[in-house]
Amino acid sequence: MDKPPDATILDPEEGFLTQSRMPRSAPPRSWRTWLIGRPLPSADAPHQTIGKMVGLAVFAGDALSSVAYAPQETLVVLALAGTAAFGYAFPIAIAVTLLLTIVTISYQQTIHAYPGGGGAYIVARDNLGELPAQVAGVALLIDYILLAAVAVSSGAAQIVSAFPLLLPYRVMVAVVMLILIMLANLRGVKEAGAVFVLPTYFFLATAFLVVVLGFIRLFMGNLGTVVDPPPIELIHAAQPLTLFLILKAFASGTTALTGVECISNGVTAFKEPRSHNAAITLIWMSVILGILFLGITYLLGIIGAVPSETETVISQLARTVTGNRGLIYLSVVAGTTIILVLATNTAFAGFPRLAAIQAGDGFLPRQLTFRGSRLVYSRGIVALAIVASLLVFVFQASVTALIPLWAIGVFLGFTLSQLGMAHRWWKIGHLAKGVEVQERGSTLRYEPAWEAKLIVNGLGAVTTALVTVIFALAKFRDGAWIIVLLLPLIVIALFAIHHHYRELAQDLSLEKYGESPRSQRHRVLVSLAGVHRGSLNALDYALSLSDDVTAIHISIDHAQRVELEEQWKLWGRGVRLVVVESPYRTFIEPFLNYVNEICDILQPGERLTIVVPQFVPKHWWHNLLHTQTAFLLRFMLLNQRGIVITEVPYQAG
Amino acid sequence: MDKPPDATILDPEEGFLTQSRMPRSAPPRSWRTWLIGRPLPSADAPHQTIGKMVGLAVFAGDALSSVAYAPQETLVVLALAGTAAFGYAFPIAIAVTLLLTIVTISYQQTIHAYPGGGGAYIVARDNLGELPAQVAGVALLIDYILLAAVAVSSGAAQIVSAFPLLLPYRVMVAVVMLILIMLANLRGVKEAGAVFVLPTYFFLATAFLVVVLGFIRLFMGNLGTVVDPPPIELIHAAQPLTLFLILKAFASGTTALTGVECISNGVTAFKEPRSHNAAITLIWMSVILGILFLGITYLLGIIGAVPSETETVISQLARTVTGNRGLIYLSVVAGTTIILVLATNTAFAGFPRLAAIQAGDGFLPRQLTFRGSRLVYSRGIVALAIVASLLVFVFQASVTALIPLWAIGVFLGFTLSQLGMAHRWWKIGHLAKGVEVQERGSTLRYEPAWEAKLIVNGLGAVTTALVTVIFALAKFRDGAWIIVLLLPLIVIALFAIHHHYRELAQDLSLEKYGESPRSQRHRVLVSLAGVHRGSLNALDYALSLSDDVTAIHISIDHAQRVELEEQWKLWGRGVRLVVVESPYRTFIEPFLNYVNEICDILQPGERLTIVVPQFVPKHWWHNLLHTQTAFLLRFMLLNQRGIVITEVPYQAG
Repeated sequence: MDKPPDATILDPEEGFLTQSRMPRSAPPRSWRTWLIGRPLPSADAPHQTIGKMVGLAVFAGDALSSVAYAPQETLVVLALAGTAAFGYAFPIAIAVTLLLTIVTISYQQTIHAYPGGGGAYIVARDNLGELPAQVAGVALLIDYILLAAVAVSSGAAQIVSAFPLLLPYRVMVAVVMLILIMLANLRGVKEAGAVFVLPTYFFLATAFLVVVLGFIRLFMGNLGTVVDPPPIELIHAAQPLTLFLILKAFASGTTALTGVECISNGVTAFKEPRSHNAAITLIWMSVILGILFLGITYLLGIIGAVPSETETVISQLARTVTGNRGLIYLSVVAGTTIILVLATNTAFAGFPRLAAIQAGDGFLPRQLTFRGSRLVYSRGIVALAIVASLLVFVFQASVTALIPLWAIGVFLGFTLSQLGMAHRWWKIGHLAKGVEVQERGSTLRYEPAWEAKLIVNGLGAVTTALVTVIFALAKFRDGAWIIVLLLPLIVIALFAIHHHYRELAQDLSLEKYGESPRSQRHRVLVSLAGVHRGSLNALDYALSLSDDVTAIHISIDHAQRVELEEQWKLWGRGVRLVVVESPYRTFIEPFLNYVNEICDILQPGERLTIVVPQFVPKHWWHNLLHTQTAFLLRFMLLNQRGIVITEVPYQAG
Repeated sequence: MDKPPDATILDPEEGFLTQSRMPRSAPPRSWRTWLIGRPLPSADAPHQTIGKMVGLAVFAGDALSSVAYAPQETLVVLALAGTAAFGYAFPIAIAVTLLLTIVTISYQQTIHAYPGGGGAYIVARDNLGELPAQVAGVALLIDYILLAAVAVSSGAAQIVSAFPLLLPYRVMVAVVMLILIMLANLRGVKEAGAVFVLPTYFFLATAFLVVVLGFIRLFMGNLGTVVDPPPIELIHAAQPLTLFLILKAFASGTTALTGVECISNGVTAFKEPRSHNAAITLIWMSVILGILFLGITYLLGIIGAVPSETETVISQLARTVTGNRGLIYLSVVAGTTIILVLATNTAFAGFPRLAAIQAGDGFLPRQLTFRGSRLVYSRGIVALAIVASLLVFVFQASVTALIPLWAIGVFLGFTLSQLGMAHRWWKIGHLAKGVEVQERGSTLRYEPAWEAKLIVNGLGAVTTALVTVIFALAKFRDGAWIIVLLLPLIVIALFAIHHHYRELAQDLSLEKYGESPRSQRHRVLVSLAGVHRGSLNALDYALSLSDDVTAIHISIDHAQRVELEEQWKLWGRGVRLVVVESPYRTFIEPFLNYVNEICDILQPGERLTIVVPQFVPKHWWHNLLHTQTAFLLRFMLLNQRGIVITEVPYQAG
């Protein structure tokens, strides 16, 4: 265990408490320590970075897991036009891989241009302005939430398929997985990475094994077709094979690209040289993804696999390649299940970082920028877990219901990111040679081949924009409308938050702040319910503040009033007593009326402090036995300028 | 509309705000006024009393409605031994009526001895001591809650029988009825009485009509037996007719007595002469109840009525007497339904009064003694409605499930009340002639016939104690165990509350309170997150309190610390700045550690005030965008003696 660094105190004046006699370290909160580990001091922050091997496991789970569903989703759409249309699957896969290549190249450039991380949000912010940036940010936040919900739902479905007894607890299984992944992430990114390295590489090994085995048997001529394939689920009538249908199948296939942006968001999590390591990891990831996606789609066509609700195409491929439902087959299915669950981790790695950046820009609550005891953005992690759990509950852990909500956010993010990069090349191309322009986190300098890069990014922007529109139209009725409706509303909420922070900064600004005149006079009111040790304690305090003290009693009971006036003569220390009758037995209203009247006759520079005796019981539940007048009074007078309410606690016993 | 009396201000010192320029009357809160009527000034209180006719309707609904189920419950038990056992019903009814007579005589004496009201609780408190009093109080409170739950459930069952379409909404119907009766009671007892006069007398008219018609036809010899009676629901095997079974049937029959005690609790609601009016009303009620109970039970035996879940015995009697299912029959059934619903009102009249008395004695939260804007104990009324609604929800508005929980409380109350009265006669009998002893609300004076009265009350106590035990044993498994378990726990809770109030009174007592030395020195700490208008405003306030001001900054971010130190040189007004490093990025812990260190070096008589700048946003939801440090700090330091925390609000805009 590291010894926490000693707290230091700076004291500009000698003789005043300069030495800390107690250790100022974080208190070990036992249950939290047990759950998420001992607190880490801020000084440890730079050490909590990861290498390329761990980075791939942490950030690429999402993208890699998509080979489990993207080929299947393509075939599901093509099946609408009959099995003959399956021939289009491989050309579509090539198109998707081309798109993947474009996006990867674009993000390569982004990672090098933005070593501070931030992905689509940062790029849009620096190059396109506030509105596109917030649209991109919201799109990606939604994407992360849906990724988490989809991945645990899919994982739960796999677990439930293996253990049918768990079927009634599917939603619970998904939520428990979310909580476990949340806890792993609250412990910190390095350890979270360590947890996920083994399963990720296990999945990669099994997936490559199937593809390599498949091609070996293909070249040896003994691959054959799927034995006993599941029955094809026929829609009412076969649709004609239109261009729209092919585009729709292409859109479904592009779900393979979800998660590609995560690495560029998380560049700062990598070891130095950050950009280099992150870029290499991205290339690895895209190459692996492309090979698996193309290989699997090609082999699926050869073996005549059929998309089905009863058996996934991956399962069909695995048993055709291995020839039986043996150990390798089971490993492939298990690996696929695990990678789907771990894909959730990508969301937990990306969401809190992006939310922290947006919060730092003042578009989300600032609390999201605070790092927790384990140096991670705990609030963002917990927020993601809560919202994703809600989604899982509402959609009853159904992947089919969640998928249509998903990809719009991803491709909107891609579009804005590449549009931003394109604009950046445009600006760079129009700079004079040798001139350097500083723009937020990045430096703009003339580059010779800017036209080529502009074209790559421009093409990417157009393509991904098209995919966004196709996705939104094709899946509108299935649930995409929710995102189309929600996204602008959330963006508006973010600007409302931003407006508040800007206004606050102006309100608190010291510009045009003249040295205000010191208050000449200080009036003090003491609220008096009865004459006892508590109220006399408050009276003492009031007299220590000012010589102008008035006690005020709201009278509900006449007998009590008479008694109080008698006692005041004895104990009141000569302080003026004002009694206000309350004919309707209320306390707050007559008190507020009186305070308002005092406020009206207050001189400029005169202050009013209301002292309220507060009885502090030994046990919190004793508060239920007392009316909380001080609390109510504070609440009612919060907006009144120039009034300070002071509760003087009187402790029991 | 009455003009509210003007607020008056007593001012012992001339020249200070003595005249109220604004009317100090209660603000007309529109939605509350609409729901429960305009606020009533305290001066109106004595006028809100009721006469005998209205009093019968308000307090006797419970007792009178029991003729709808008590005869039936007796027959249900006897049916266990076969229809031959039904012959015991009338003798049992005579025994119940005898018990009713004893209880009525006892309560007559109670009402005259205790014109201040309070029933069993007061009698037990004054004559038996604190523990029996609280047991009686809790027993009666439970009784009221169950009465409300049973009566609306039974009423809902009747409504649902008439309109089968409402069957799925039975629980909702019961809760809506509870809410309506709650609102009627929140308006005040007089108007609530007016609402219930007509239905109560409608029920009495129809009930007497049936009994009188029945006896006329009996004497004319043409009454006959029930045509087409419902099939008797046979239990597995007929039990032998044991003494235990007869006692059990007797116990079921005694549910007719529930509600007899209400009038003695509510004596103060009656017009003067209170005791006289209340006593007369109690006699009326008992006579009416006795006649109806005996008459109905006798006629049921003659016509051979059969207890059944499909048709109540009252319905069987009504159609046999009238000869058909005509208008009179329907009126009887409707009257029975309405009186069951209105019986709930008895609970709403009794519960809040009893709770207020117990709260006045310091055994329940004092808030229950406050009268609401309509001069009723609003909190008790609302509390009853909430708890009864919960019961209705949990037991799904099933009368059968609720009945076994009910009568224990009633008879425990009777037992303690009559035991108390018996003890009272014993004390009175042993006083010297002519001696008067003041005991709380009542005066003890020798009375000649005290032995006879002691015997009556003693007999009552023994009988009702027996009934309590029989009830608890017979219905233990059906739900009585809940009350047997809960009652002592609630009594313990009440004593815990009492202990708290007693301790508080001692803590606050001015006995042995010497004039404490005035505080010589006042140290002030200002919490400083940044240098801005809000914190400088707080600094100004701090400087107006004392010359010994220290600003304290908890440093999480080094850059921010450096900036703050720079700005402090410019704006800090020469106030000493202490910076505490927080290596674990927490605020509260290092701040508390620092405060604790200051506290340790505080001189006797020295005060510490912590000034916290508080930003008050324009809209409440903006608070979500800020960390509520002041609130947390207040919470953590509440138990630290000698520290006052003052939030200096800084309003936005």
